[in-house]
Amino acid sequence: MKKCIHIFNGPNLNLLGVREPAIYGTTTLSEIQSRCEKRAQEAGYSVSFFQSNHEGELVDLIQAARGNATAIVINAAGYSFYSVAILDALKTFDGSIIEVHLSNIHQRDKFHRHSIMSTVATGVICGLGPQGYISAINAVIAMSE
Amino acid sequence: MKKCIHIFNGPNLNLLGVREPAIYGTTTLSEIQSRCEKRAQEAGYSVSFFQSNHEGELVDLIQAARGNATAIVINAAGYSFYSVAILDALKTFDGSIIEVHLSNIHQRDKFHRHSIMSTVATGVICGLGPQGYISAINAVIAMSE
Amino acid sequence: MKKCIHIFNGPNLNLLGVREPAIYGTTTLSEIQSRCEKRAQEAGYSVSFFQSNHEGELVDLIQAARGNATAIVINAAGYSFYSVAILDALKTFDGSIIEVHLSNIHQRDKFHRHSIMSTVATGVICGLGPQGYISAINAVIAMSE
Amino acid sequence: MKKCIHIFNGPNLNLLGVREPAIYGTTTLSEIQSRCEKRAQEAGYSVSFFQSNHEGELVDLIQAARGNATAIVINAAGYSFYSVAILDALKTFDGSIIEVHLSNIHQRDKFHRHSIMSTVATGVICGLGPQGYISAINAVIAMSE
Amino acid sequence: MKKCIHIFNGPNLNLLGVREPAIYGTTTLSEIQSRCEKRAQEAGYSVSFFQSNHEGELVDLIQAARGNATAIVINAAGYSFYSVAILDALKTFDGSIIEVHLSNIHQRDKFHRHSIMSTVATGVICGLGPQGYISAINAVIAMSE
Amino acid sequence: MKKCIHIFNGPNLNLLGVREPAIYGTTTLSEIQSRCEKRAQEAGYSVSFFQSNHEGELVDLIQAARGNATAIVINAAGYSFYSVAILDALKTFDGSIIEVHLSNIHQRDKFHRHSIMSTVATGVICGLGPQGYISAINAVIAMSE
Amino acid sequence: MKKCIHIFNGPNLNLLGVREPAIYGTTTLSEIQSRCEKRAQEAGYSVSFFQSNHEGELVDLIQAARGNATAIVINAAGYSFYSVAILDALKTFDGSIIEVHLSNIHQRDKFHRHSIMSTVATGVICGLGPQGYISAINAVIAMSE
Amino acid sequence: MKKCIHIFNGPNLNLLGVREPAIYGTTTLSEIQSRCEKRAQEAGYSVSFFQSNHEGELVDLIQAARGNATAIVINAAGYSFYSVAILDALKTFDGSIIEVHLSNIHQRDKFHRHSIMSTVATGVICGLGPQGYISAINAVIAMSE
Amino acid sequence: MKKCIHIFNGPNLNLLGVREPAIYGTTTLSEIQSRCEKRAQEAGYSVSFFQSNHEGELVDLIQAARGNATAIVINAAGYSFYSVAILDALKTFDGSIIEVHLSNIHQRDKFHRHSIMSTVATGVICGLGPQGYISAINAVIAMSE
Amino acid sequence: MKKCIHIFNGPNLNLLGVREPAIYGTTTLSEIQSRCEKRAQEAGYSVSFFQSNHEGELVDLIQAARGNATAIVINAAGYSFYSVAILDALKTFDGSIIEVHLSNIHQRDKFHRHSIMSTVATGVICGLGPQGYISAINAVIAMSE
Amino acid sequence: MKKCIHIFNGPNLNLLGVREPAIYGTTTLSEIQSRCEKRAQEAGYSVSFFQSNHEGELVDLIQAARGNATAIVINAAGYSFYSVAILDALKTFDGSIIEVHLSNIHQRDKFHRHSIMSTVATGVICGLGPQGYISAINAVIAMSE
Amino acid sequence: MKKCIHIFNGPNLNLLGVREPAIYGTTTLSEIQSRCEKRAQEAGYSVSFFQSNHEGELVDLIQAARGNATAIVINAAGYSFYSVAILDALKTFDGSIIEVHLSNIHQRDKFHRHSIMSTVATGVICGLGPQGYISAINAVIAMSE
Repeated sequence: MKKCIHIFNGPNLNLLGVREPAIYGTTTLSEIQSRCEKRAQEAGYSVSFFQSNHEGELVDLIQAARGNATAIVINAAGYSFYSVAILDALKTFDGSIIEVHLSNIHQRDKFHRHSIMSTVATGVICGLGPQGYISAINAVIAMSE
Repeated sequence: MKKCIHIFNGPNLNLLGVREPAIYGTTTLSEIQSRCEKRAQEAGYSVSFFQSNHEGELVDLIQAARGNATAIVINAAGYSFYSVAILDALKTFDGSIIEVHLSNIHQRDKFHRHSIMSTVATGVICGLGPQGYISAINAVIAMSE
Repeated sequence: MKKCIHIFNGPNLNLLGVREPAIYGTTTLSEIQSRCEKRAQEAGYSVSFFQSNHEGELVDLIQAARGNATAIVINAAGYSFYSVAILDALKTFDGSIIEVHLSNIHQRDKFHRHSIMSTVATGVICGLGPQGYISAINAVIAMSE
Repeated sequence: MKKCIHIFNGPNLNLLGVREPAIYGTTTLSEIQSRCEKRAQEAGYSVSFFQSNHEGELVDLIQAARGNATAIVINAAGYSFYSVAILDALKTFDGSIIEVHLSNIHQRDKFHRHSIMSTVATGVICGLGPQGYISAINAVIAMSE
Repeated sequence: MKKCIHIFNGPNLNLLGVREPAIYGTTTLSEIQSRCEKRAQEAGYSVSFFQSNHEGELVDLIQAARGNATAIVINAAGYSFYSVAILDALKTFDGSIIEVHLSNIHQRDKFHRHSIMSTVATGVICGLGPQGYISAINAVIAMSE
Repeated sequence: MKKCIHIFNGPNLNLLGVREPAIYGTTTLSEIQSRCEKRAQEAGYSVSFFQSNHEGELVDLIQAARGNATAIVINAAGYSFYSVAILDALKTFDGSIIEVHLSNIHQRDKFHRHSIMSTVATGVICGLGPQGYISAINAVIAMSE
Repeated sequence: MKKCIHIFNGPNLNLLGVREPAIYGTTTLSEIQSRCEKRAQEAGYSVSFFQSNHEGELVDLIQAARGNATAIVINAAGYSFYSVAILDALKTFDGSIIEVHLSNIHQRDKFHRHSIMSTVATGVICGLGPQGYISAINAVIAMSE
Repeated sequence: MKKCIHIFNGPNLNLLGVREPAIYGTTTLSEIQSRCEKRAQEAGYSVSFFQSNHEGELVDLIQAARGNATAIVINAAGYSFYSVAILDALKTFDGSIIEVHLSNIHQRDKFHRHSIMSTVATGVICGLGPQGYISAINAVIAMSE
Repeated sequence: MKKCIHIFNGPNLNLLGVREPAIYGTTTLSEIQSRCEKRAQEAGYSVSFFQSNHEGELVDLIQAARGNATAIVINAAGYSFYSVAILDALKTFDGSIIEVHLSNIHQRDKFHRHSIMSTVATGVICGLGPQGYISAINAVIAMSE
Repeated sequence: MKKCIHIFNGPNLNLLGVREPAIYGTTTLSEIQSRCEKRAQEAGYSVSFFQSNHEGELVDLIQAARGNATAIVINAAGYSFYSVAILDALKTFDGSIIEVHLSNIHQRDKFHRHSIMSTVATGVICGLGPQGYISAINAVIAMSE
Repeated sequence: MKKCIHIFNGPNLNLLGVREPAIYGTTTLSEIQSRCEKRAQEAGYSVSFFQSNHEGELVDLIQAARGNATAIVINAAGYSFYSVAILDALKTFDGSIIEVHLSNIHQRDKFHRHSIMSTVATGVICGLGPQGYISAINAVIAMSE
Repeated sequence: MKKCIHIFNGPNLNLLGVREPAIYGTTTLSEIQSRCEKRAQEAGYSVSFFQSNHEGELVDLIQAARGNATAIVINAAGYSFYSVAILDALKTFDGSIIEVHLSNIHQRDKFHRHSIMSTVATGVICGLGPQGYISAINAVIAMSE
């Protein structure tokens, strides 16, 4: 299999840099995508980067990662907290899964504190802002060395 | 910004007037739309009226209200009780948000009793039937006077 | 029966306009009374407007509405959250009951979040400030048309 | 109304036979479809068989069953555990509804144990594997005899 | 001390025979008072019979029973479920206390199911309608024999 | 149907007067039986009085009351707190059911506080000691007058 | 081992067809037994059919199924909700176990909603009425093909 | 503003020295009043000392402290555990509030363990008996130094 | 009283050595009985050893220990977790009671973790296998020295 | 015994006056020590004043108070909320124990709201800042008068 | 490995025989040590006996048992109820672990009822007093035979 | 301030590479230290690396980081789940705090699932094994660029 990382971004992350900057910062999602591609390329990986507000679309995309991706990096945003459909889709993937949250979700209100995705993720990174994506890619690289 | 109210209706409200009339009454959603447009027009407002059964579509539509709408009136129906994706989309809007429920959700079973949208809404109206939409529009008008 | 709306206000609402204006605004209770009377008169209704800090007095007043009022509008304030005595009194009334809260109680601390009155109210309005009383009166009028 | 059963399959069931075979077995969804059609035909019923990863699409499809289907057989998969939108759509259907789960969900982790659909289903069958669909069809037939 | 039973009735019981007769029956409170007086007299007891919608008044009355009453019979109605003030007043009484409820409160909704008064009552009778008062008086008589 | 009251006593009540007299008193079960028979006879009722430590036997006996008893008086003792089998048997009886507990179960530890039988009983009497049985019989008589 | 299915029926099912027919229907248990025997015979199975109101007896019978039965079909009725003794007995059986409930227990009150037997059953069928037993037998047959 | 401390005492405290002396001691409320006045006077403060069994009256009195008192000392007794009406009244006061309980409420049963007043009090003192009032006055003095 | 220990074994323990040997080991109940009798005899005690699958029978047997046994050793197995009837029977015994479980119930699922018998037992031993019975007998001997 | 008060301070209180001054003020722990010594001396008491970040050390110190101290004043800081070891050590002391918290812990997050020490303390003082220590010493003096 | 049992005693057990003798008896810890050494010696085992009030010290000591002890006997006292540090240290030991409590912790208050150590212990003994240590040693011996 | 990162390791981490390697891997703590020092040095940072089994020692060390460290990286191990003392110590530090766990704690049992440290950490990394420490250092570096 070619060395490829699929990065999935959930609902409202298309507004990153605009929405609640006090919590999420001013970096946009396409800037994150650029940084991810640069870091992955250095290690000989390609990146497929997706964002969707639609739960079903995220399920479709995650299913499509089977056989095509070495690893998944996912920030499921609002869906992190209840989407068993996405959780089940992640279970169909057999590479490693790194879950990323820009903010430290453990400091937030009860609707944003416990991601059900964490039960199937290999590792979880939160509160590091955009750097969290780079840490996730580094973890994928380190794991396959 | 032009004076415009975006009114969002969630899943199964397209069947209004047909589905469980004992609870929701016989008025159809397009009759509600007409009444809303009439009342808004009297006060110099236009109305954009949407219905969707798709969570992702509602997220897209709410995001699009940024910069285009003075206020949002939302009846998220079934999504009211768990959609953090819609909740997060509402947080990206900076005008006022009036939540409407046709029935008095506080009298119903535990799956339909606590709307998570209420934590970000400016005001909440329930149990007034179609009149609730008119009250919501009146509240928007009163707030901007 | 003559067309009459009884409006009940619970403990500490006599301090409205003074107490915690950041939450409750600067409008006083007697200004709200005036607006209610004006709106009701337009539609041919009279208004009886009461405030009491005493739970038993509110029970007495609500009992007295039987046979004398078309509808009840009630903001039970602090009693909303535990007074089964007032709840039971409301159950003895057979017209419609509209519950009003000035602030959006769903955004507040756990002592002020769930009104037990909502289980017997026809409709509930919160977060619209003094406008909530007018919406309540409008709802009463719309229901009896 | 013609004798027709609508069978709905939720997210990730398109991967049946591939995903977690230790739990779900090696039968594919199209094999299940064939068996269902065969059994239904014997009893003079036609079958409409759907699968979707999209919650909203399932809501649309269930709404469309009104007036067109004698009964619904539904395996809502991951959506079983939180989709009030699908729950509300099922409530709009007035024929009988048989809920099916391939595995015995009562033996699983807390996210997969309590289907909210069961509160509106006529009957629930779980743990019988693909045979569960045939049992569901048989139940529909037996009920209309 | 003279043989005297104080019987206390809480909020809304003044409407007995009128309010929700399907639950509480058509007997009025003064009819119950008559029956109680008759039964007590037969056994050489006098009865003091009170009703109040005011929690503080009930506290005052219960305090006044100290030294004046052989026993208390109390139907605290709505206050049964939260009034620690009345609970504390009952603790100041050293005779026996019989709690009465007209309906079987264990069959009702969660606000009317657990009387905190029961933790200090000698005995509790519910669901026997007006007969419950007579049973309470009989129990007082039997205890002092 | 002949006027007959079936009185059922659950596990360990055969030791009444011996077991934990500080809580249950020194009266034996056969003394209670005598008093019950005497009181019933005065009003023209016969009494069938049973005690069993066996849950299944109590189910059998309660089933046998169908068509043979005007009313059931039951002190299910330890089974009160979990026996759905006895609860279901009581549901098959269509006369009135009076539940009796010698002690005030609401004052006890959590295993002895909430009788599930109370949800199907007509009335519940506790804390009156042996007198509770007489009150139950009186209630049956009063109800059929 | 000979092909034999042991069918166990718990407390109060002997009254089937009589007790709460609105919930359980008018079919008697012996009619169900006949239908089961007929269906099993067609597939070359014999049936042993038991009913008992006694928990210990059911434990004895289930233990006796070891080595004598291919499969167990059990409707533990009221014991479903708390009998760890029966649960443990079922664990001693190594064939498949199909749990049946006539009504859809997920729609009922909290005492009748969660069967602890389901955690050891192979499959669970509820809400299909007497047909549920036939579905269970069919499932046993399908599993052993 | 003149230096004045308002001291409020809730229901049943009028019986202090009489009621449950094993828990509350033998000092009467008027002895406590004397000690408070003496201590306050030494520091140049006057004292207004109130007791009421009526929740509404306590609300009225607390409201009247606005503009008239430097600080409030309150022992809300039984109302401590549920009176949001008194809680809200305390919020309207902008001086410091010291909550006092004679006994250590943290050692008591669940109805008397958590005072909701503590969430708005500046400080809380319990278990020191009458000395607690003096400590409260000392705290007020220390704070305004 | 003669020195005698009554040892009670609950449901399914008759299958010991056969049922789930991975958890309970291969020793049979009669081997345990032999070891117990041998150890007791050494210390001058006789042993009465019982096993029953019937809750009521266990209640009968425990009642019979009154006046006949120095101590009770009980492994109530599945009944440990809900039988208030057995719990109450144990309360009628005034010698010491040692509770034994073969496996460490604290490591198991929630239905097998908390024995309600422990609240009345003198001591509790679990996880020591058949040796636990010997430890229990030793404890009885040590206590009476 | 000589009149001596042992004052114990738990983890991080050595940083008092530095750490989170907005919550804890600017007074240092040694200033508090001085004030305590001064107040105690006036009443003829000596003071032993300790601070430790080590749970075990606090246990050692509290044990050492047995026979050496008239009373204990303790601010267990972070350990207040979970240290059963310290709780048990306090139980070994037979003089009075006054618990002090600088801030009003009842207003804080759930990890800092319920001190388990309060269940064994004679009295509890919180929210009075350093003055709380002086109140505690005064209480000790008042109690031994 | 030499046959050696490490026995660990947690906080406040150094006061055994002194502290709360009504609960823990008058035997001192060094008497228990002597009895343990005697019993172990008979079976050819040596004993290392430790007590510490310091959680970290107990962690150090338990880690040191790896490779040096055949088995651990531990009475973690107050730490039993929350010390995940000690729990984790016990997990690093691969011999058997017997947990001992002098009193029957299941009869005590909620802070002393559930030992988290039990989830990793081989066996648990409580309520047998000092005899519990001997039973633990006997169990170790029996297991290695 | 010099660029220095303090890395704290809690109880039992000294056994890393030995203890439960299936969960924690075979890398030792000193290997992790080497990797951390190497990575930090590349970016011009020094590292202070500590491990302790003693809660109080960790509190002391964290306090000492004030003014000496740019950032804290902490793996509090077993203390993560209950040590309010360490939590409070971390609050006294004003640089950033990165929490690291070797395994994905969200997949584990309930005692190891929710770290209370996360509520004060800047970011949290878990499940990445030793690489998690490097990611933490990278995050510190990225934050200070």
